Amino acid sequence: MKDKDLLPGCGQLNAFSGANVSTPWLADPEQKHTRKLCNNLEEAIQRCELQDGMTISFHHAFREGDKMINYVVEKLSALGFKNLTLASSSLMSCNAPLIEPIRAGVITAIYTSGMRGQLAEAISNGLMASPVHIHSHGGRVKLLQDGEISIDVAFLAVTGCDEFGNASGTGKGSACGSLGYAMTDARYARKVVLLTETLLPYPALPASILQDQVDYIVQTDCVGDPARISVGAARITNNPRELLIARHAAGVIEHSGYFTPGFSLQTGSGAAATACTRFLGEKMARDGIHARFALGGITASLVELHEQGLIEKLLDTQCFDSQAAESLGRNPLHLEISTNVYANPASKGASCDQLDVVILSALEIDLDFNVNVITGSDGVMRGASGGHCDVAAAANLTIVVAPLIRARIPTVVKRVTTLVTPGESIDVLVTDHGIAVNPARPELKERLIQAGMNIVSVDDLWQRALLISGQPQPIKFTDKIVGIIRYRDGSVIDVVRQIAKEE
Amino acid sequence: MKDKDLLPGCGQLNAFSGANVSTPWLADPEQKHTRKLCNNLEEAIQRCELQDGMTISFHHAFREGDKMINYVVEKLSALGFKNLTLASSSLMSCNAPLIEPIRAGVITAIYTSGMRGQLAEAISNGLMASPVHIHSHGGRVKLLQDGEISIDVAFLAVTGCDEFGNASGTGKGSACGSLGYAMTDARYARKVVLLTETLLPYPALPASILQDQVDYIVQTDCVGDPARISVGAARITNNPRELLIARHAAGVIEHSGYFTPGFSLQTGSGAAATACTRFLGEKMARDGIHARFALGGITASLVELHEQGLIEKLLDTQCFDSQAAESLGRNPLHLEISTNVYANPASKGASCDQLDVVILSALEIDLDFNVNVITGSDGVMRGASGGHCDVAAAANLTIVVAPLIRARIPTVVKRVTTLVTPGESIDVLVTDHGIAVNPARPELKERLIQAGMNIVSVDDLWQRALLISGQPQPIKFTDKIVGIIRYRDGSVIDVVRQIAKEE
Repeated sequence: MKDKDLLPGCGQLNAFSGANVSTPWLADPEQKHTRKLCNNLEEAIQRCELQDGMTISFHHAFREGDKMINYVVEKLSALGFKNLTLASSSLMSCNAPLIEPIRAGVITAIYTSGMRGQLAEAISNGLMASPVHIHSHGGRVKLLQDGEISIDVAFLAVTGCDEFGNASGTGKGSACGSLGYAMTDARYARKVVLLTETLLPYPALPASILQDQVDYIVQTDCVGDPARISVGAARITNNPRELLIARHAAGVIEHSGYFTPGFSLQTGSGAAATACTRFLGEKMARDGIHARFALGGITASLVELHEQGLIEKLLDTQCFDSQAAESLGRNPLHLEISTNVYANPASKGASCDQLDVVILSALEIDLDFNVNVITGSDGVMRGASGGHCDVAAAANLTIVVAPLIRARIPTVVKRVTTLVTPGESIDVLVTDHGIAVNPARPELKERLIQAGMNIVSVDDLWQRALLISGQPQPIKFTDKIVGIIRYRDGSVIDVVRQIAKEE
Repeated sequence: MKDKDLLPGCGQLNAFSGANVSTPWLADPEQKHTRKLCNNLEEAIQRCELQDGMTISFHHAFREGDKMINYVVEKLSALGFKNLTLASSSLMSCNAPLIEPIRAGVITAIYTSGMRGQLAEAISNGLMASPVHIHSHGGRVKLLQDGEISIDVAFLAVTGCDEFGNASGTGKGSACGSLGYAMTDARYARKVVLLTETLLPYPALPASILQDQVDYIVQTDCVGDPARISVGAARITNNPRELLIARHAAGVIEHSGYFTPGFSLQTGSGAAATACTRFLGEKMARDGIHARFALGGITASLVELHEQGLIEKLLDTQCFDSQAAESLGRNPLHLEISTNVYANPASKGASCDQLDVVILSALEIDLDFNVNVITGSDGVMRGASGGHCDVAAAANLTIVVAPLIRARIPTVVKRVTTLVTPGESIDVLVTDHGIAVNPARPELKERLIQAGMNIVSVDDLWQRALLISGQPQPIKFTDKIVGIIRYRDGSVIDVVRQIAKEE
């Protein structure tokens, strides 16, 4: 059959040459079932044809309990790889073992939402030759869409999957819950390797990651420790100051004009934010006001409200504790969403755009309501961009909760050390010394005053902080840029410079 | 902030210039909710920037009950569009109204799985200047992957969706059930327009098509008639000959060696195939043999077995009747899958590769077991490629069921009029005059003989058909190619030529 004769004007098409030419594995009843299964990680790496200079990715759904990021990078170090770009959705204190492979040149570039602990300290002190890119969760998807991050191999830890790769983060074994970050990597990566604890019978559907996005599967003893998901950012508080802030934040929501039947909320993982969820729940039960959905990182307190019927649906991009992870496997309207559905500004539809109310935290907030969630007052990186600037930009009411002073250091400052979320996206600041409303929202301020709330100016708060803790010493930086803060649209909103050594 | 100073070696990055520069709709609380909603189809077409020469797509999940394909093309005709490529997942008898827009040059190229009725007749008689491409369901996704089909605008009928486009084919209103075809178009199209009967409250999750794949939404009175989904291909039979074939097919499965606990099956939409599902169900209940899953087009008879606990999961790429569509909304393990997950040979994992047993139909089958499901014995197109060659290539046991003679015309022929599925993919032919086993499967033949089944050679069947109905008249064709039959891997397996007018 000569194609050129056959198909005038239809381009060059190939003639048929056998039923399984493009699918040779179909000729072998065994290989049909086993072709994705690797005996070990090394085999998967080799079959992915990973090369020096390529980009690898991970999700951080196990947070401080993750066991796969360090493990894979250690293996790559042992295999002699160099100049890799590490694009993890975020990095934690548990990732301190990455310092050595960075020093050895195994990893020479990093994209992440944040950093903590010794790794962050080392990078802030100039560990890397090129700066780390800090992105938001939504912004990461845009960088993938735009091709700035081009993942060659995604190594994705899952609780269980079948032999084709239908995978989820719930069920028997170490469960991280939502695979919202992993779903995005599975969509964009050239090759996808699943690291799974359990191999389930086919078809393991419904699933979070589907078989048509998975290349190879490696079975592993333990992918992560669910008990350590809530270590660090996501904790429950008995601190009276944090409870006070939480109570005020719940009051702000109640009187904001957005506390109406069918409203939506995101309360995040901070201690005060988590406590606020409870106080808000009491008001919701009292007034019979039910929420349509809660979004983002899901906590045990949100699950409680959901199970009480106060929140209809949970749209979950990351489980902030093991209770949330268990709920995802149990509650049919506790629903997993990818970070593209969650917050990518360039997605065709981001759920954060539907948000009424969000509560966010801050390491620093300044007189223009600009927020820093990355660097401490010592200039060292110790936080994460997360979904902060994404939801702040999108929600109808963005509340930042923070103590005025933390360990003798003011939170309200003249100018943030590092700008992550622009003040124009912040509506209200709730502290233990009063509530400040962004002057751009006079109608909101008026409502809160009418409700008898303690409204002050952000300048008042700053003055009071100065009075209590004195003028902070300016931090000394070198010229070297160690971190580039990317706004959700990919633009550069600030940089972090290396800390100058004390003499 | 000067980027070049900022970012040595990091390429040219933009400096931040405002929180909502890339998301202007966030500045307007109203527009956040309404930006995808169009007042009418015309507005959606205009906002998609559809141009002459572009490619539009549709799904055919409503089959003979579809109301959107004709409606949209009529609108495009009225608006004066020309030279469009129509890439519908399939076309039916109900699409006869497309003849006029084709004649008028509104549509000048077609990709489809098949054609029936007056439209097929007209095209077989040379209506179009360029040949229609006939692809399989899996092969269509490969053509999309490869970019040969590049959808500019997908117009996708759905039962309901919310204002962001989270959509499904179940629920209140005209339900087609699985949106397996639409999911693929939503994934690949540049612009996606949903035509929805109902606008649901946000978030209408879980959903089949997600908000991050949808551009515009048009509300419409009625997208399709579920009662007409089962018209044509998918019907239930009382015909004794078909029941006989069905009984024998069930017997072949029982004794094939594949009828074991946890087997998987696809039984399709033909009358005998549907009846076979029931007979097989009786055997499954009798022997306590449960299937892990049934795949592909799902019928009421498969739903029955699922609800009896005989089939654990239904992986549904298309509901073949309204009962199946209702089941999808009701049964949590009746699961929707895209055509990429179903059968694309170039997907990272196609479920058909996991199939043990499939029953397929044929318009003609020849001495080499080659199958024709496109053209009738008169050379006119009147069928569809469907998933035929996809699952035939992939399943462990591929059974074709067909009456030896149909309306005095032999089904078993020396050489098929049009080759769609190569004989090497077919294992058994079950007719009302005996069962033929592909010589490539001697062990299977042996098992069936041992079980006392009536095994004959395909040559015997052909001879018998000749004896009953006489030597058929050869069809006269012109040189003009009216259809190109694409194998699932994109190669050209055959062509259909225009029928010569009788003199």
